[in-house]
Amino acid sequence: MKFSIKKNILLENLNNVSHAVSNKNVIPVLGGIKFELNEEGLYLTATDNDIDIQTFIEKKYIDKVEKNGSIVIQGKFLLDIVRKLPDGLINFEVIDGLKIMVYTTNSNFNLNGIDPSEFPNLNIEKSKNPIILNKKIIRKMVNQTIFASSTQESRPILTGLNIKINDNKMECIATDSYRLAKKTITLNNNVDNLINIVIPSKNIGELVKILTDEDEEIKIHIFTNKILFEFDNLLFQSRLLNGNFPDTSRLIPTDYKIKINADLNELFNVVDRASLLTSEKDKNVIKFETNGNILTVTSNTPEIGKVEEKLPINKISSEDIKIAFSAKYMMDALRTITSKDVKILLNTEISPIILNNEENDDLIQLLLPIKTY
Amino acid sequence: MKFSIKKNILLENLNNVSHAVSNKNVIPVLGGIKFELNEEGLYLTATDNDIDIQTFIEKKYIDKVEKNGSIVIQGKFLLDIVRKLPDGLINFEVIDGLKIMVYTTNSNFNLNGIDPSEFPNLNIEKSKNPIILNKKIIRKMVNQTIFASSTQESRPILTGLNIKINDNKMECIATDSYRLAKKTITLNNNVDNLINIVIPSKNIGELVKILTDEDEEIKIHIFTNKILFEFDNLLFQSRLLNGNFPDTSRLIPTDYKIKINADLNELFNVVDRASLLTSEKDKNVIKFETNGNILTVTSNTPEIGKVEEKLPINKISSEDIKIAFSAKYMMDALRTITSKDVKILLNTEISPIILNNEENDDLIQLLLPIKTY
Repeated sequence: MKFSIKKNILLENLNNVSHAVSNKNVIPVLGGIKFELNEEGLYLTATDNDIDIQTFIEKKYIDKVEKNGSIVIQGKFLLDIVRKLPDGLINFEVIDGLKIMVYTTNSNFNLNGIDPSEFPNLNIEKSKNPIILNKKIIRKMVNQTIFASSTQESRPILTGLNIKINDNKMECIATDSYRLAKKTITLNNNVDNLINIVIPSKNIGELVKILTDEDEEIKIHIFTNKILFEFDNLLFQSRLLNGNFPDTSRLIPTDYKIKINADLNELFNVVDRASLLTSEKDKNVIKFETNGNILTVTSNTPEIGKVEEKLPINKISSEDIKIAFSAKYMMDALRTITSKDVKILLNTEISPIILNNEENDDLIQLLLPIKTY
Repeated sequence: MKFSIKKNILLENLNNVSHAVSNKNVIPVLGGIKFELNEEGLYLTATDNDIDIQTFIEKKYIDKVEKNGSIVIQGKFLLDIVRKLPDGLINFEVIDGLKIMVYTTNSNFNLNGIDPSEFPNLNIEKSKNPIILNKKIIRKMVNQTIFASSTQESRPILTGLNIKINDNKMECIATDSYRLAKKTITLNNNVDNLINIVIPSKNIGELVKILTDEDEEIKIHIFTNKILFEFDNLLFQSRLLNGNFPDTSRLIPTDYKIKINADLNELFNVVDRASLLTSEKDKNVIKFETNGNILTVTSNTPEIGKVEEKLPINKISSEDIKIAFSAKYMMDALRTITSKDVKILLNTEISPIILNNEENDDLIQLLLPIKTY
C-alpha cells in the first residue's frame, strides 16, 4: 500500500472512525484502524466489537495512489500524528509487510502495523427498505431521551434505548425505572412490519457525536441483532440488546387532576438553587408545594441548612399538591424541553410527574415522586 | 449582622477569597468565609492555614446596613448560592446568633453559620518599605517559572519558588533538580537588605489566578516566615518555606560551545510530534542531533515505532552535537519563551541545555540531558 492524501480529508475520516477504536488493551487489533486501498478508493474501518464504523474516501480525493493494499495501524497514535502534522500532503507506505511509514517532507514516522487478516469481519449488510430519517431529528431524539437510560448493568436491557415503529409512528423510550423519557416521531415512509428493538444507549450516544446538525438524510437498516446507520461516506453499525424492554405504556397516565404551566428557565433556576443544599446520597430530594398560583420549592438538610423558593405558576385546577422528587432528575428532564413554558402534569403525591413541551406532547418526561414521610 | 449588597459586587469578592477556603473537611471553620461588617464596611476573610485572603468592601458599595456584626458562612455553599441567584440585591441577616438568612424576593436560604470566635487570627502585618511590582510582571514571572518546581514532598524546599533580591535586582528560581527556570527582574526601588525567601509554588499559583493582567501596582510585604501581597481591595498572605534553597548559580554555564537559533513554533511542533511515540515511564526521551544547519529530532519505542523529524536551524559553531532529554520538560520550557525564535545553548552531551528568548536572557530555562547509552 502506498498513497498520498491531504491531511484535512484524512483527519476528518480518522476522527469519525476513532469512535469505534477500542481503548481497552486486551485485543491489540481492536485498538487499530484498518486501511484498505483498492481501485475504488480508501476504506477506513474500526471496531471495538460493540460499534463498527467504516468510512470511504473516493479515489478522486486521494492525491497519488502508487500501490493498493491494506494494513491495520494503531488508532490512538495515528490520530495524534495526523492531527499534529502540518497541513498539506501526508504519505503512507507499507514496508517490510507489517511496518507502515507515515511521512511528510520533514517528518517521518515508522510504525508497527498489524496484519489485516487479524481484523474481525464486520458483516455489514444493508436492508432493502431502510428507514429514512433526518440527522437533526435523530440527534434531537437521542439527546432528549438517552440520559434517562440506566447505567447499572444489573438490568442490562435498561441500558438501551427502545425504538418501536408501527406504520409511520416511531417511539423512542429510555428508562432507568425511576424516570422515563419518550419521544414520538412521524416518519415519511410507512414500515411494513412492527419494529421493536433496543440499541445500547452508549452506542447511539457515539453515533450522535459524529452526526452534524444538518438537514440531511440517514438510512437506517434494522436487523434482528444489529442496526446500521448509513450517511455521508460513513457506515455505523451497532449490536442490539437481547431481551424485552419493559412495556411502559401503562406507566404514563392519560388523565391528570392538576395541570401547571411555568416559565421553563425560571423553574429550572428555582430547582437548581433548591438542590444546592441537598446531598447526592439523599438523592437530591426537593419538595414542590402549590398554593393557588404560587409554587413553593423547598429542601432541608439539617447539617447544612434549608432553602425555600417561590415561583408564580399558572395552575388549571382548584386542587393543591405537595410532592417530592429528585432535583437532579427534574433538571435533566427540564434540559430537554425546548419551549418557553413547560407543562407539569400531576395527579397525586404518589403518582408520576409528567413534563411536556408547552404546545405538544411528542416529548414526555416522566419522573417518579419520592416518599419523604 | 444585617445588610443588603449587589450580587455582582459580592460575587467578585467571594470568588477572590474562595481561593483560601479549605476543601479538606478536617476543621469546619477553615471551610468557611468570615463576614465582618463594621463602620467602615464589610471584610470577607478565608484561610486554609496555608494561604489567607481578605477582601474589603467599602460601606459605599453596600446598599443597606441595618446592623453590624460578624459570622462565618460555609464557603462552598455560599459561593454556589450567590452565583445562582438572579442579578440584583441579596440580603444577609444573622438570626438566632448562629443561623444566617440569605434572601432575595423569591429565594430564601437559611444556613448554619459558625461562631466567628472560632476563626483563626491571621496576624496580617504590613512592612514599612514594601516592594512595589506590577501585576502583569508578577503574573508573567510566576507563569514562566513555577512549572519547574518539584511536586514531590521528599525535598519540600524544592516545592517552592525562590525569590532573591539584591539592590534593585530580583531573581525568581524554581527547580525540581532535573530542570530549572530562572527569571530576572529589575525593580524600580532599591531594597536595603538582601532578601532570600521561598514561597510555596502552589500558593503563588493561587495568587496568580486572582491577579488581573493589568498594569497596576502590587505592594509586597516580606517577613521572616510570611509574605503579604496587597492590591486592589485585597490582602493575600502566604507562609514561607523554611530551609535553604540550593544555590543554583554554578549550575548555569557562563560559556557555550554551541549556539543554535531555531523558530520557536517549529521547534515546539517537532518536539511535540517526536514525543508522540515516547512513553511517560521512559521519561518521554527524545534525541537531538545537529548536522550543520539541520537539526534531527528522533525517538524510538520498539513496541510502537520510531519517528525522525528534521528542522532547519542557525548554528553558530562548526561543532555538531548529539544530546537526549525529556520532551515534556523541553515543551514546558518552550511554552514560556515569548520571542519568535528561541536560543538553544549547549556544551557537551552531558552538560545542561539552556533555552533563552532570542533577544535577551532575563529568562533562563535549563534542562539536564538524559544519558541514553
